[in-house]
Amino acid sequence: MKIARFNNDGLISFGIIDDDELVVLKGDPMFAGYDPTGQRVPVRDVKLLAPVIPRSKIVGMAWSYFADEDEQSVAMDSEPRFFLKPNTAVVGPGDPIVLPAASRDVRVEGELAIVIGKITKNVSVLDAEDSIFGYTIANDVTAVDLRERDGHLTRAKSFDSFCPLGPVIDTEFDWTGLSIESRINGETFQEGTAALLKHTVAEMISFVSGVFTLLPGDVILTGAPGRARAVADGDTVQVEIAGIGVLSNPVRRA
Amino acid sequence: MKIARFNNDGLISFGIIDDDELVVLKGDPMFAGYDPTGQRVPVRDVKLLAPVIPRSKIVGMAWSYFADEDEQSVAMDSEPRFFLKPNTAVVGPGDPIVLPAASRDVRVEGELAIVIGKITKNVSVLDAEDSIFGYTIANDVTAVDLRERDGHLTRAKSFDSFCPLGPVIDTEFDWTGLSIESRINGETFQEGTAALLKHTVAEMISFVSGVFTLLPGDVILTGAPGRARAVADGDTVQVEIAGIGVLSNPVRRA
Repeated sequence: MKIARFNNDGLISFGIIDDDELVVLKGDPMFAGYDPTGQRVPVRDVKLLAPVIPRSKIVGMAWSYFADEDEQSVAMDSEPRFFLKPNTAVVGPGDPIVLPAASRDVRVEGELAIVIGKITKNVSVLDAEDSIFGYTIANDVTAVDLRERDGHLTRAKSFDSFCPLGPVIDTEFDWTGLSIESRINGETFQEGTAALLKHTVAEMISFVSGVFTLLPGDVILTGAPGRARAVADGDTVQVEIAGIGVLSNPVRRA
Repeated sequence: MKIARFNNDGLISFGIIDDDELVVLKGDPMFAGYDPTGQRVPVRDVKLLAPVIPRSKIVGMAWSYFADEDEQSVAMDSEPRFFLKPNTAVVGPGDPIVLPAASRDVRVEGELAIVIGKITKNVSVLDAEDSIFGYTIANDVTAVDLRERDGHLTRAKSFDSFCPLGPVIDTEFDWTGLSIESRINGETFQEGTAALLKHTVAEMISFVSGVFTLLPGDVILTGAPGRARAVADGDTVQVEIAGIGVLSNPVRRA
């Protein structure tokens, strides 16, 4: 099932994708279940929004793929590593990634995003997948020059618009079949599959839930296969995951 | 005016401190104003809670005081530096700081905390203080050994219970008169005044609002004067700011 959040003439609702229509729901299905209003609207008549705004946190996994040579050396360290992005960084499909004036080197990375569905603390690897509401697509945007200046990731990854999410949450996606491709202006710059992930989705959830409580709506970005790529004013970035869809965002200077 | 959030027999409310009583309010004064219910309850009859749970983020300023020699070298870099803590790290006065099994070196630091009162983006230094709802006291807890292992701050500072806040929000506190003292089991390990801060409160707010939008209820920890101190199971940590109060938390192993 594919869930979208959308703006229909100023009214924000959730809906289930049914071909080219949305079956409108009474509330957020994460909390209110799948209770239809009876209304259906064509997808083309609405603006799709980020399918979730985390109440608490976006957790980004770092160095999570065996996709390039530099990463191979990190692989010996068996613990996943992660950073936080604030929920104010979230924008939806079609919304611009805004290049901040403070940076001259903003880069994008396409990632599978896990949407957490329930309060989760110290969950075992065995039980971790029970905490998943579904999956969506993310673009993890970083001002790389600011990371180098600060020596850590927070500022570089936290600007408004630095976490596009969408277009939908797929509640039945099988991450073991992940195939992801990221493009700038149609040219592919990252490709990968689940086979290259260092940790399973369950291992990621179990590990981070041992640090902090995950809340419904929290999002875990699973990392990107390969190098981030710089973007410029006027570019369009597309991240495609077979079975979920395409997350497309234009880039503009602030 | 001093605002508390409290649990009175299972009912969570906000109130204004009036001597040893609370003037109970109808809602969260940040959003609903100061509308009293007419009820008054003795402070000793309720459990005080963290006076705010951020909807979005806790921003921690790093290396923000000229309090020790190592920090003097950072002073030449004129930009404030910061990290994020998730809202799931917040606990209230009297709640335990829980030492995670993964760490053998958890340290505490007492800090003045700014509570943001309105949506704030790219605010000038001149206008920045208009965004302040009030001030409270924070304990910025860090698993220092995990920071050293990860090479960055996120995991080390994000465990549940690693951000005690309280006991109250003071809406009239004058930060330029700040005098802060932190104690473990009654022994003082950090002391400082506003004179040692590298940046004004307005400069901090202006800088971070240039990265991300601050939301009502977001909290900025202004940093600690001097070295963090290790704590052990059974310790009690107190952070005192003259004019706001004392934030006291016991420490226990998970």
